[in-house]
Amino acid sequence: MKRPTIIDIAREVGVSKAAVSYALNGRGGVSPQTRERILEVAAELGWRASSAARALSSDRAASVGIVLARSPEVLHTEPFFMQMVAGLEQTLSEHGVSLQLALVADTATELATYQRWWAERRVDGVVVTDLRAADPRPRLLRELGTPTVFFGTAEAMPGSSVLLVNENDVARTALAHLAGLGHRRIGHVQGPRSLQHTVRREEALRAAAREYDGVVISRASGDYTEESGMRATRRLLAARDRPTAIVYDNDVMAVAAVAGAEELGVAVPAELSVLAWDDSMLCRVVRPAVTAFAHGVAKDAATAARMLLELVETGAVEEGELSSRRLVPRASTAAPGS
Amino acid sequence: MKRPTIIDIAREVGVSKAAVSYALNGRGGVSPQTRERILEVAAELGWRASSAARALSSDRAASVGIVLARSPEVLHTEPFFMQMVAGLEQTLSEHGVSLQLALVADTATELATYQRWWAERRVDGVVVTDLRAADPRPRLLRELGTPTVFFGTAEAMPGSSVLLVNENDVARTALAHLAGLGHRRIGHVQGPRSLQHTVRREEALRAAAREYDGVVISRASGDYTEESGMRATRRLLAARDRPTAIVYDNDVMAVAAVAGAEELGVAVPAELSVLAWDDSMLCRVVRPAVTAFAHGVAKDAATAARMLLELVETGAVEEGELSSRRLVPRASTAAPGS
Repeated sequence: MKRPTIIDIAREVGVSKAAVSYALNGRGGVSPQTRERILEVAAELGWRASSAARALSSDRAASVGIVLARSPEVLHTEPFFMQMVAGLEQTLSEHGVSLQLALVADTATELATYQRWWAERRVDGVVVTDLRAADPRPRLLRELGTPTVFFGTAEAMPGSSVLLVNENDVARTALAHLAGLGHRRIGHVQGPRSLQHTVRREEALRAAAREYDGVVISRASGDYTEESGMRATRRLLAARDRPTAIVYDNDVMAVAAVAGAEELGVAVPAELSVLAWDDSMLCRVVRPAVTAFAHGVAKDAATAARMLLELVETGAVEEGELSSRRLVPRASTAAPGS
Repeated sequence: MKRPTIIDIAREVGVSKAAVSYALNGRGGVSPQTRERILEVAAELGWRASSAARALSSDRAASVGIVLARSPEVLHTEPFFMQMVAGLEQTLSEHGVSLQLALVADTATELATYQRWWAERRVDGVVVTDLRAADPRPRLLRELGTPTVFFGTAEAMPGSSVLLVNENDVARTALAHLAGLGHRRIGHVQGPRSLQHTVRREEALRAAAREYDGVVISRASGDYTEESGMRATRRLLAARDRPTAIVYDNDVMAVAAVAGAEELGVAVPAELSVLAWDDSMLCRVVRPAVTAFAHGVAKDAATAARMLLELVETGAVEEGELSSRRLVPRASTAAPGS
C-alpha cells in the first residue's frame, strides 16, 4: 500500500485523472454520481492532498520551527527545553501544524537555518528564545519577513509577537527571602553573559539589594552545566568576604553545588544557603532540597504557539507575559550559621 | 525582503519567467550569458527551490519523523527523550534533513499521525521506539510502506531496519552485583507492562536469578514517574519476605525511592539497596548516589538516524545493536544490613 494518488483513485473508479482532480477540487466537469463515487473511493484509499501540493497552492507549510542553540549536555539535563517543546507541540498539533526542530552549535548555523527554512518554505513562522547581546536574529527574521514569537524578552519587538519576562519580581522575592533570613553577602552564579537575561537578572538582583542596608551582590559566570556550577561556587567562596547565600541561574548549577558541598568544603545551609532560579525534580530530590522558583514552562510554550498561529493566520502582533514564578522554600536556605 | 521567487529574478534580470525557469533547471532556451546572469541574481537574492516544489518533483520530503508517546510529565523529567531527539537531529541536520516531532497521548493518535505524515508526504521515514505488546505500529507502517527504524527491539522486523537491545547482559550484571553483595530477595519496580521491554527485562532478571541459589524476584508496576516509584516500592516493602534490594526500570523511580526513603521508613543502603536501569544526573546528585547503568542514547540515536537515511535513500534494511550499558556502582547498593 503506497501513498494513494489521484491515479489510483482514477483507476479504481474507472475515470480519467482529470475527472478525479475536478471532483476533489470541487469543480465542474463530472456528474454528481461520479463525483460522489470519486470522493468515496478517495476516502477508502486514505487519499489526502500532499503537503507539498497544498503548500504550493496555499503558500502555507503548516509547520513552525524552533531552533535550540544550547549544548547537547545542557539540553539533556535541563528539563526546560523538553517542557518547552512539549508545550509548543501540544497546541500546534491541535491545529494540524507540525513542529520542525533544529539543534545548532553556533549563531551562524542558526541564522542559516532560519534562512533555509524560510527560502524553502519549510515553516510558516518560528519561536525564538534566549535573546543574546547584540542578537542578529530579530533583524534577520524581520528582513526575511518570517512571523516570529520571541519567548521571554524584556521589551516589545517591532513587527513580532512577544512573551515578556519580568526578572524584577523574582529578584525582589529572592532578596526578601535571603535578606529576611539575615544574609548580607549574596552571590550570583550566572548563565552565559552573552544572554540578555543573564545581565538583566544581575541588574535586577543589584536593584533589589539596594532596598536593604548593607546587602552586597558578587557574581561568577557559569554555562548552566554541573561543572561550571561547581567552578563558579568555588570562585565565590574563595573571596575574603565570601557570600553566605548564592542565587543560581538554573537548577543544574544549584544542585551541583549542594551535591558537591563536601567537595567544596561548605555546609549547606549552615555556611551557605542555595537558591535556584528554576525548579525541577533535581531540586526536590537532592539533600538538603533546594529552595527554587517554580514556573509554568509548558503553559507559556502553549501560549507562544497560540500567538504564532494567530500571527501566521492574521498578521496580528500580540504582547503577552510569561507566567510569574513562585518561590518554593526548602531546606537549602536558612539563617547564616544556623 | 520576502522569499525570492522566479518572478523576482526575472524582473531583476529583465527576462521572462520561463527563461529563468529554463536557466535554473539547466535546460536549453537561454543564452549562456543570460543563464550566467540569472544564476548570479538567483544567488544574490538567496533564491532556493521551495521544499514544496522540490518534494513534488523529487518525491522526497527531506524530513523524517518521530512520535513520542509518553506523558508530558515523563518527557520532562526523563533525560532519555531529549538525548534521543538531540542525537537524531544532529545527524539528520548534517544531511540537510529536518526532524518532525509529534507528542501523542494514545496509540490511536499515533497511528493517525503516521498515516497523515505519509499521505501528506511530510516525512520520508520514521523512527519508532518503545515497542508495545500486540503493537499495531509495525503492521501499519509496513502497509503504508513508510521506511522505519525500530529503536530497541528484541528481534528483527521484516522490511525495516532495527537497533536490537540485549536486556540479558544488563540483567546478568545487575544480578551478579546484587547477589555478590549477598542479596537473595530482589524486587523489580517496572515500567508499564504494555511495553515489550518491561516484560523482557523481568524475564531476563528471572533467568539471571536462576544462576544463583535461593535468589527470588518480586515485582511491582510503575509508570516511570516519581509517584509510581514510591507506590511500587511501598508495595514491595509491605510483603512478609520484603526484598533487600530493588532494581528500578528507570532513574526517576529509583531516585524517588532514595529521596523518599525516610517517608518509606527504610534506610538506603542498610535496609534496601537501590539500582537503576538508566543513569542520569538525578542518580549522581541524590544521597546516597544511585548505582546505575550508563548508556549512550545520543550515540544510538545518531546510528538510528544514519540507518534511516540509508533506508530512505537505497532501501537497504540493516540490523544493528544498541550500545551496551555499563554498571556504575555508587553508594545506594551495599551488603544487606551493612
